[in-house]
Amino acid sequence: VNLFWALDRMDATGASAKLDRGSALLEGLLAEAHAIAAEDQAMCRAIGKHGAELVVPGEGILTHCNAGGLATSDYGTALAVIFSAHEQGKHVRVFADETRPLLQGARLTAWELQRRGVPVTLICDNMAAQVMKEGKVQKVVVGADRIAANGDTANKIGTYGVALLAQAHGIPFYVAAPSSTFDLAIPDGSVIPIEEREPHEVTHGFGRQTAPAGVDVYNPAFDVTPAALIAGIITEKGVIRPVNGETIREMIGG
Amino acid sequence: VNLFWALDRMDATGASAKLDRGSALLEGLLAEAHAIAAEDQAMCRAIGKHGAELVVPGEGILTHCNAGGLATSDYGTALAVIFSAHEQGKHVRVFADETRPLLQGARLTAWELQRRGVPVTLICDNMAAQVMKEGKVQKVVVGADRIAANGDTANKIGTYGVALLAQAHGIPFYVAAPSSTFDLAIPDGSVIPIEEREPHEVTHGFGRQTAPAGVDVYNPAFDVTPAALIAGIITEKGVIRPVNGETIREMIGG
Repeated sequence: VNLFWALDRMDATGASAKLDRGSALLEGLLAEAHAIAAEDQAMCRAIGKHGAELVVPGEGILTHCNAGGLATSDYGTALAVIFSAHEQGKHVRVFADETRPLLQGARLTAWELQRRGVPVTLICDNMAAQVMKEGKVQKVVVGADRIAANGDTANKIGTYGVALLAQAHGIPFYVAAPSSTFDLAIPDGSVIPIEEREPHEVTHGFGRQTAPAGVDVYNPAFDVTPAALIAGIITEKGVIRPVNGETIREMIGG
Repeated sequence: VNLFWALDRMDATGASAKLDRGSALLEGLLAEAHAIAAEDQAMCRAIGKHGAELVVPGEGILTHCNAGGLATSDYGTALAVIFSAHEQGKHVRVFADETRPLLQGARLTAWELQRRGVPVTLICDNMAAQVMKEGKVQKVVVGADRIAANGDTANKIGTYGVALLAQAHGIPFYVAAPSSTFDLAIPDGSVIPIEEREPHEVTHGFGRQTAPAGVDVYNPAFDVTPAALIAGIITEKGVIRPVNGETIREMIGG
């Protein structure tokens, strides 16, 4: 949703320029792009600041997929919270789900954290429950692709499962996302379509065939985490909690 | 536990033979091995028979890792239940977790089911919650490596998480295992040691590096599912349910 919000802004900028003045059009678009990037950076920092206030020194934080600098113009959303807490000397350790099938956690999140000197432990997705049971995780922070008006949150496949496991272990589960990720026209998560992706990602995801030829595969790209499982949504405007239509409208809408 | 039980039997057979009569010793060991194989086959069939009685026609059954013929002398434990239900024309569909890091679900379970004509859908481990939410799964059946006297069950990493997700969706979670898998000397799962395996399995599991060099990895081989999450344990002697020390002693011990 955030990506299309930015494209809409570029579109509006283009439409408002006179099309016969080519260089002015390009300059206008470039200025708008720079403005979006600067706003995005400020937004990431604000999310980081609000989120870091929730982090207790020494905590283990589990994250899923990648919501870092590689997905935004600066230092991300879920990872902004972690980077900010780390910069404040809060000595966090991150458990990064590898995030099958495309391994964004192993390839992107672990790399971003390592590069900034944040202690990170890579796990397979199916190890999250055990890590929680062992008391290694005190908080879950993930990003979001789209948030409905009631707080139901679509994010990378596996996020919903992590939220259920966190609930079972009494671990608060947070979503970090800019207010542009809210899609207030969508009442709740039941109407968010779940994209299905190629079986090949699951059967040949590592450049090598790892399943029998012709096997049926189900490969949903996203899932929806119900608002009831979310302790708070960390936005650039502040932390929405408890998560419901009213608290969201107060922070985001109107 | 089951493997060491068989080795103990071979050991006892060897010890009871006269060591100076080489060919008699070998014949005795071979006869014992054949006896174990025949018993194992009968055991698998009995587990299949008892388990299949629990299966309602048309059900979706989720399994994790591999508890099939490749892990036993015949057609397995968890998969015995499925094969038996399939042979009875119960039209089941299996959802097989790929089971990272070693992909026993993708490489073994999917192959065994496909070979016997059982409809199977391969999923990544982190998709189990979504598949359950969509109502595609009515039962979970997994194997076991070791079962404590109270029913706490050690099995491949990820099993515990699946049990929690099943509970959250009101889906009964069954363990299928021969009575030789019970280790009644162990009071409960808290004293079962969790083996840690090589980071390389997670970072290079497919012959290609999929995580940054030097990243910390946690790679527990097993986890323990508490008895309270297990609807029943399907053994060759019958189905133990509810699962507790008393029902286990009644079926297995004494």
